[in-house]
Amino acid sequence: MPERVGSISELRSAYREGSLTPADQAERVLDGLAGHDDGPVWISTVPADRLRERAESLSRHGDPALPLYGIPFAVKDNIDVAGMVTTAGCPDFGYEAVEDAPVVRRLLDAGALLVGKTNLDQFATGLTGARSPYGSCQSVFGGGLISGGSSSGSAVAVAAGQVSFALGTDTAGSGRVPAALNGIVGLKPTRGLLSTAGVVPACRSLDCVSVFTPDVAGALDVLHAARAVTSADPWGRPFPAERVVPRLPGTLRLGVPRVEDLEFFGDSGQQARFAAGVERLHTFVGSRRSVPLGAFFEAGDLLYRGPWVAERLVALDGFLRSHPESVFEVTRAVLETGRRYDAIDAFRGQHRLRELRAQVDQLWQDVDVLVVPTVGTTFTLDEIAEDPIGRNAMLGRYTQFANLLDLAAVTVPNGFTSSGRPASLTLVGPAFSDTTLARLAAAVTEGGASTQMVEASPPPPQRSAELLVAVVG
Amino acid sequence: MPERVGSISELRSAYREGSLTPADQAERVLDGLAGHDDGPVWISTVPADRLRERAESLSRHGDPALPLYGIPFAVKDNIDVAGMVTTAGCPDFGYEAVEDAPVVRRLLDAGALLVGKTNLDQFATGLTGARSPYGSCQSVFGGGLISGGSSSGSAVAVAAGQVSFALGTDTAGSGRVPAALNGIVGLKPTRGLLSTAGVVPACRSLDCVSVFTPDVAGALDVLHAARAVTSADPWGRPFPAERVVPRLPGTLRLGVPRVEDLEFFGDSGQQARFAAGVERLHTFVGSRRSVPLGAFFEAGDLLYRGPWVAERLVALDGFLRSHPESVFEVTRAVLETGRRYDAIDAFRGQHRLRELRAQVDQLWQDVDVLVVPTVGTTFTLDEIAEDPIGRNAMLGRYTQFANLLDLAAVTVPNGFTSSGRPASLTLVGPAFSDTTLARLAAAVTEGGASTQMVEASPPPPQRSAELLVAVVG
Repeated sequence: MPERVGSISELRSAYREGSLTPADQAERVLDGLAGHDDGPVWISTVPADRLRERAESLSRHGDPALPLYGIPFAVKDNIDVAGMVTTAGCPDFGYEAVEDAPVVRRLLDAGALLVGKTNLDQFATGLTGARSPYGSCQSVFGGGLISGGSSSGSAVAVAAGQVSFALGTDTAGSGRVPAALNGIVGLKPTRGLLSTAGVVPACRSLDCVSVFTPDVAGALDVLHAARAVTSADPWGRPFPAERVVPRLPGTLRLGVPRVEDLEFFGDSGQQARFAAGVERLHTFVGSRRSVPLGAFFEAGDLLYRGPWVAERLVALDGFLRSHPESVFEVTRAVLETGRRYDAIDAFRGQHRLRELRAQVDQLWQDVDVLVVPTVGTTFTLDEIAEDPIGRNAMLGRYTQFANLLDLAAVTVPNGFTSSGRPASLTLVGPAFSDTTLARLAAAVTEGGASTQMVEASPPPPQRSAELLVAVVG
Repeated sequence: MPERVGSISELRSAYREGSLTPADQAERVLDGLAGHDDGPVWISTVPADRLRERAESLSRHGDPALPLYGIPFAVKDNIDVAGMVTTAGCPDFGYEAVEDAPVVRRLLDAGALLVGKTNLDQFATGLTGARSPYGSCQSVFGGGLISGGSSSGSAVAVAAGQVSFALGTDTAGSGRVPAALNGIVGLKPTRGLLSTAGVVPACRSLDCVSVFTPDVAGALDVLHAARAVTSADPWGRPFPAERVVPRLPGTLRLGVPRVEDLEFFGDSGQQARFAAGVERLHTFVGSRRSVPLGAFFEAGDLLYRGPWVAERLVALDGFLRSHPESVFEVTRAVLETGRRYDAIDAFRGQHRLRELRAQVDQLWQDVDVLVVPTVGTTFTLDEIAEDPIGRNAMLGRYTQFANLLDLAAVTVPNGFTSSGRPASLTLVGPAFSDTTLARLAAAVTEGGASTQMVEASPPPPQRSAELLVAVVG
């Protein structure tokens, strides 16, 4: 078993103490890549000599004060890296990127060490990790459990300790569902904080770049290093100055879904974990209030059961028509439902969304943070194969509304069910609540308390013990 | 010729001095209605006894300190008034409104005296005033000149002095074009400042309630009395506190269109007036800079030559199918082009608009106010009949981009051409620049200066002399 590369804060300490150089780190990363056996995590990796060169250059000329100095990371393969092919999970769609996506450029400028590009559900359409011609990732917890998607490779690379962080994208939940299934942190920032320039569009008006890390603090480090408003990006939004500073957890009003709105698809283990997680969260916040989820679910349904599917075809319609055989069958079936809608449907859907958003905006008058299960249940690859579209929809129930409603979200581990499946919570808040959510998430997971959550349940199968060190540490 | 009712400030002074009561005022209004001969301005009026009752009640129990105490006004007939039929310019579409639109309710609560509901281009679709089964309004300047539309009756009622102010709606220019053609002020506020609840939707995401007045100060009085954010209105937006206070005209950076971007359709008279108006404006601002209009025009073209036509069908598709013969032929022809677009077109158009909006947002880094002609040229009713769609599009060139680009606009008179046609300027600025635009507009038109603009050109035909008193006064 190769050595884990460590979290951002761990590496930062090691660099500061002088016990590690980026060149050493590059060797550890290369060992990790060689020793990994969890399936098709990577679509392409930076050649070993190039990785060593970059690390060497950082060791010699880099400024150790750079915020991500020598930190190894992965990039989901729908985000451009200059000189590497962007496939979006579809080999025939692939093109060699001329420029780095601005969000990647910012990370490199901050001293980070790019390791490679990761597998994904084709065109970032899917939440399972089982929709890629490069093969299906599995969860690091094994047992045939799906990795979740669409940012499957990025989540597994972080959970397996091959990199300290990874970029994903998250339109319907692709940055949260795989975090849940691999026991790590997934930050889905407010739309526009991280530039989506140089990202293959899914639903362009909703797309977000997301961050996977073993701990919450690392996710915030990446967010702060990567965010930038460039005039070239029409979807970019700056952080309003007054919202950068997080609120104290103890002042927060927590919203908890009404029991009748919660659906675990018969998974009593997940239901029990969620109840326990909420109780624990409650001890960190100021107050608690019951919240109806109807408007959230109705908004979420617009994404795949409404006109927004057509938004995916803005970028893909031409390719789908000219290369129908190049597209995964289930992916094509999903995308082509977008042709059912006319422009009247699109505007009608947007009007309804506006009404739902107004309802949810009202909710934020009374509540600062809403907690939801990240997924109601988990599936194996075999189970997904039985019903790839229906079970995908189940996985998105608690995630797909977030971007439509202009929300921020932080996903954190929440122990394991009695049958050893990973559980996870997602904290949700209005746009620009990112740092407030993260602070609460950090308090809950890193106040020495994740352990307690884990001890409440039997040890998960296989490699989980190793993983928990990373999650808790 | 009946007596004009006077502007808001004139009536306010008269009430304050005790030289006038609302009851007296009601009689003047009724005289004015009886004496008017400018065509089908009104679709319905408040019965004389009801008007007298309301005025009497105000005189006896009303608070003279109310901001619009005893001020007579008109409402475009696509805005609900409880107990009156809302036709939207289509008798078969008409329904009796159960409740006042919130914007009307606010005005009534502020003491205003409702006179009636005014003619419009059917379904607020058109800029000519020649698309109503109730007949075509003419400009108060006569000579067969169109009134402009779609808020035709509201503009004429104000210009003719039948009311002190009127509500219109403005999606593509319906609150600015008829102001231009009747020599009055048209305020198109930032979208969402005035509630569009209780308004028959045109393009719901773009619709604005607008204000016609003889003077700029009156338009601001109405804006401040009418605006309110109600949680029931998903399209409402509050005025950010820091933007309510206007900036001083002398500090403003004026944007002036590049000469090559200006199109007057061969109308050298309008061209000359615009040049004169810009020179005059220049004396009131701090600096001046040339601005390209390409992004504005491209955005504007999305409205009728792009997928936004389909947005009009969200509200009207069912009626159009069930009552095709009830709809004006030209209106039906325009609306039905919305069926050409699919949902992919709608999202693609929105992506392009987002890019254009980002370009225009950049412009506001260097410029505070942009001045454009309100219309490049004017037409008679006969000229419109020759080419009702093409000439309508010409009328919208400088107005139709505003709501798509989230801009505020104030339209003010700019004298007359040598052939006696009214000229007009529109000041345009980013969202929430309303009061800054209005302050500059007031300085230019009411600093004793409109007279000067008018004296530069021969007196217009017919009733213009009377009108100018109102405009300048």
